[in-house]
Amino acid sequence: MSSHELGEHAGVSPALVRKDLAWFGEFGKQGVGYEVAFLRDELRRILNLDREIRVALIGVGSLGSALVRYQHRRYTEEPGFNLHLVALFDSDPNKVGARVGPLQIHRLDDLESLAPALGIQMAIITVPAENAQEVAEACARAHIKALLNFAPTKVIVPADTHIAHADVSLEMQRLAYYLDGADEG
Amino acid sequence: MSSHELGEHAGVSPALVRKDLAWFGEFGKQGVGYEVAFLRDELRRILNLDREIRVALIGVGSLGSALVRYQHRRYTEEPGFNLHLVALFDSDPNKVGARVGPLQIHRLDDLESLAPALGIQMAIITVPAENAQEVAEACARAHIKALLNFAPTKVIVPADTHIAHADVSLEMQRLAYYLDGADEG
Repeated sequence: MSSHELGEHAGVSPALVRKDLAWFGEFGKQGVGYEVAFLRDELRRILNLDREIRVALIGVGSLGSALVRYQHRRYTEEPGFNLHLVALFDSDPNKVGARVGPLQIHRLDDLESLAPALGIQMAIITVPAENAQEVAEACARAHIKALLNFAPTKVIVPADTHIAHADVSLEMQRLAYYLDGADEG
Repeated sequence: MSSHELGEHAGVSPALVRKDLAWFGEFGKQGVGYEVAFLRDELRRILNLDREIRVALIGVGSLGSALVRYQHRRYTEEPGFNLHLVALFDSDPNKVGARVGPLQIHRLDDLESLAPALGIQMAIITVPAENAQEVAEACARAHIKALLNFAPTKVIVPADTHIAHADVSLEMQRLAYYLDGADEG
């Protein structure tokens, strides 16, 4: 397949396809193009999509529960889906021991001891804003280096930890910037 | 406040603070700095954060319901929170007429007629992947120009429409890229 065809699928220019892929190695041949199956496998490997990532979810409120069901459905139904939610945590003693889908809710205090045993490398944080920092610190003690934070607040993490913010309202407020343009245009 | 102090709060360099703000006008005075209240109000105005955005949510499953409760809580509890969820839509006849929090679920077929009356400018799409395109098209007919799509699929929208993707798994797969680096480091 040519960079032109790949670009059409991805919605970017052929030049950008060639430039971006060149960052990671030589995948294509001039005048021949790219061998699709090889390219796909190489990219999956480079992007760490070829191995299972074991994930904890912390804060089992309504948003947390919805994400548990959503992730579990994708993991069980999509072949090759690489995100495996393996444990839930909450600090509310009334929730500990309850189940959501196939998973039981553990005490947040047990994160540090359970994370290595369960091979947890990533955490989804769905606690209220005021608890997000302490949860991030619990993740640091549990050596979890990748966090997806849904709490609408800034959280400070160690330098070797990656955090992504999934603040729905922030995303909507970003979109709002363009609304005026739509009015004016 | 100096660009140095602003940069510390934002976690960026003073030079970037000055450069970014200069895109939108002259807010600071050399040697004096920025007047914080004025700067905050101007930025809120420029970013459209000073006016209410009326939002519809389409697809009232478990994720949709969780978002309804979350948005409603922020809107009622946070002064100045500018995102107002005003209507819910679903194509499932068994859901139509039911309530989630303060809001009733309408027929998706009524989006086009209700959106202008309710002043809806933005939509949150929380339907399954296979329905996302038809929902985006219903939004286009309803003249909704800003979409936040939670469905794990690419959606084609008109050129004057802005769409943001809130695919939780995609965000986690992006984070996974850094995990290997953490292992190797």
